[in-house]
Amino acid sequence: MISPLDVWTTFSAVRERGPLVHNITNYVAMDLSANALLAAGASPAMVHAQEEAADFARIADAVVINIGTLSPPWVEAMHDAAAVAAERGIPWILDPVGVGATPYRTKTAAALLDRSPTVVRGNASEILALAGTAQGGKGVDSAHEATDAVDAARELAVRTGGVVAVTGAADLVTDGRTVVTVHGGHPMMSRITALGCAASALVGAFAAVEPDRLKATAAALAVLGAAGERAATDSPGPGTLRLRILDELHAMDERAIQVGAHLTDGESP
Amino acid sequence: MISPLDVWTTFSAVRERGPLVHNITNYVAMDLSANALLAAGASPAMVHAQEEAADFARIADAVVINIGTLSPPWVEAMHDAAAVAAERGIPWILDPVGVGATPYRTKTAAALLDRSPTVVRGNASEILALAGTAQGGKGVDSAHEATDAVDAARELAVRTGGVVAVTGAADLVTDGRTVVTVHGGHPMMSRITALGCAASALVGAFAAVEPDRLKATAAALAVLGAAGERAATDSPGPGTLRLRILDELHAMDERAIQVGAHLTDGESP
Amino acid sequence: MISPLDVWTTFSAVRERGPLVHNITNYVAMDLSANALLAAGASPAMVHAQEEAADFARIADAVVINIGTLSPPWVEAMHDAAAVAAERGIPWILDPVGVGATPYRTKTAAALLDRSPTVVRGNASEILALAGTAQGGKGVDSAHEATDAVDAARELAVRTGGVVAVTGAADLVTDGRTVVTVHGGHPMMSRITALGCAASALVGAFAAVEPDRLKATAAALAVLGAAGERAATDSPGPGTLRLRILDELHAMDERAIQVGAHLTDGESP
Repeated sequence: MISPLDVWTTFSAVRERGPLVHNITNYVAMDLSANALLAAGASPAMVHAQEEAADFARIADAVVINIGTLSPPWVEAMHDAAAVAAERGIPWILDPVGVGATPYRTKTAAALLDRSPTVVRGNASEILALAGTAQGGKGVDSAHEATDAVDAARELAVRTGGVVAVTGAADLVTDGRTVVTVHGGHPMMSRITALGCAASALVGAFAAVEPDRLKATAAALAVLGAAGERAATDSPGPGTLRLRILDELHAMDERAIQVGAHLTDGESP
Repeated sequence: MISPLDVWTTFSAVRERGPLVHNITNYVAMDLSANALLAAGASPAMVHAQEEAADFARIADAVVINIGTLSPPWVEAMHDAAAVAAERGIPWILDPVGVGATPYRTKTAAALLDRSPTVVRGNASEILALAGTAQGGKGVDSAHEATDAVDAARELAVRTGGVVAVTGAADLVTDGRTVVTVHGGHPMMSRITALGCAASALVGAFAAVEPDRLKATAAALAVLGAAGERAATDSPGPGTLRLRILDELHAMDERAIQVGAHLTDGESP
Repeated sequence: MISPLDVWTTFSAVRERGPLVHNITNYVAMDLSANALLAAGASPAMVHAQEEAADFARIADAVVINIGTLSPPWVEAMHDAAAVAAERGIPWILDPVGVGATPYRTKTAAALLDRSPTVVRGNASEILALAGTAQGGKGVDSAHEATDAVDAARELAVRTGGVVAVTGAADLVTDGRTVVTVHGGHPMMSRITALGCAASALVGAFAAVEPDRLKATAAALAVLGAAGERAATDSPGPGTLRLRILDELHAMDERAIQVGAHLTDGESP
């Protein structure tokens, strides 16, 4: 059972330790991921060149790999950074953006999955496509609900020996046995680009400070959900919502997490 | 005659159908383009690798090609995506950012123009440079008024068999015969980077749902103009204005379009 | 002695002349740098391809080179643009993001430093690493205070024959003899990604209109500090602060600079 207090404790550890999160993420997501990490108290870096990806992963506390905007040199750097993370025992997160949309994307995601990411975070269509049980979503947006992907997520978690998170209206997090559901957020969050990518980046920061990766992942998503819910109360649209989420990531205190983190455990959500 | 009701009908179709818009756009524009498309109800994807650009264009409803930040592999991907769009009969938009500023940029724009884009959208200096009648603007900003480029726009439209839009204080849209003028917006919009690129992205979404491309293009620009005008009323500067435009793209209803879309037709603006 | 009036005069010249600033900057910084330049009245362009970097530098009023997200073709373009800037006698700014974090980054920064940048702007860890007196910071964030780097900054300024700025809670600017301290800003500014990069971009714009580069650099930093201080008064967090800084860059008048620009000269800060 993961409690709001667990969420707060993990979030506090991020703010205290300020983990260095090495991101190889897509062009669209870089700005929001970096700002979300900074707002939450972590220290982001975006380093993608093959000439330095492995070196940088050696000084990082977590590595986040996101395939949103791919190209062959970047794919090499992703493998280099993931290998160093595995070797050093630091967490690395795979965000398989748009897997299933093109053969190149599917092949790249499958090869990275073979490296057993600590956490995989995607929308339902991406998790289904990654598990090989569906053709993917609408480009990079999901065509499925998170609950559609619970079996695929469990199966993937068993295959990688890690944690798999499916985000959507509600988020599911599983290590193959337990399934934690994270409620919260706001429907308008789906009209902000790269917010899922920012969720993956936050998972990296939380996993850097909390060795129980199921707890770390659920905590990161609960914090983002609480921030989104609070921010939505005074946001007339997705433009304002985006920046107010950053404000809340920076400002939320224990009480905000106690009332805003909504998690339930169980075998099926 | 394109009426505010036509604008609203087209905008509503974007929101209902949520067209998948494949963007190969510059690094600066990706974030705002993706957020503007999401706010307006479309589904954006940024996919630029030659390894997958053609594959992705096969599942897209429109392709938007923007030469803002060029490099040789991207230029290949642009040609691949444009070829697939032409083959499939889906609209593709060319945004010739900074054409005229360097020989590389001018050569790239000319080669893409030869593929007969469905719509070309640029500022006056870019349209003049593309038509071969001027040397371009000040880097990527215009040194001319939209009305200076009306003949160049008409000539380009005849050459490509498509629609050409010149945006500025007022926007001109032409198919070579009719010239539609779209009024609205706010001068402070020129102090927001990549807003013209976002306009091109929106044109892609609107052209995906409306086969009359003159109407689709004018409607997209009228919606953005109305959003900018509304957003400017409570924005103390361009930082706030940018996100309030996204709010308005998400929030505007039929009445907002009826009072905010200002279009006039005619041979000369 | 650099006065608030000097700051205002230089800022006014930027707004009047609207210098074209050619940026080869990292993916994370492009958006904020472009928007900060536009808000301050300059005309930004992001042009990084080797095929056109030299050509573009030929029409620019200043060149800003930022090594935040490196790759070999970009490094070539950086050298091309810096060479043209030197040849034409226009200012070029070096922002050595994350120097010291990886050998590739350190080597690249050192090679660019050999080209004698007009101004170098970095955080304390970067300036210390660049001077060869420390191993760098925490990824791209500083692990030192600006005052720790004053000797390194002076030494670098003598070596390049240019100006060196160390930004932090207070900023130091030196030509190797005089050290100007710029106070202002707000601690929350450190939770916004790429704000240091935007400072470098603004230094480019100010140096384009003011031949005294010590004055130009101090003025740019004083304007950004004043904008941050004003923006922080009504920002609940770093998301809002970021855009309110852009609003203030656009809106500040002579009085705002007179009361908001805080500079002191002297041998040691």
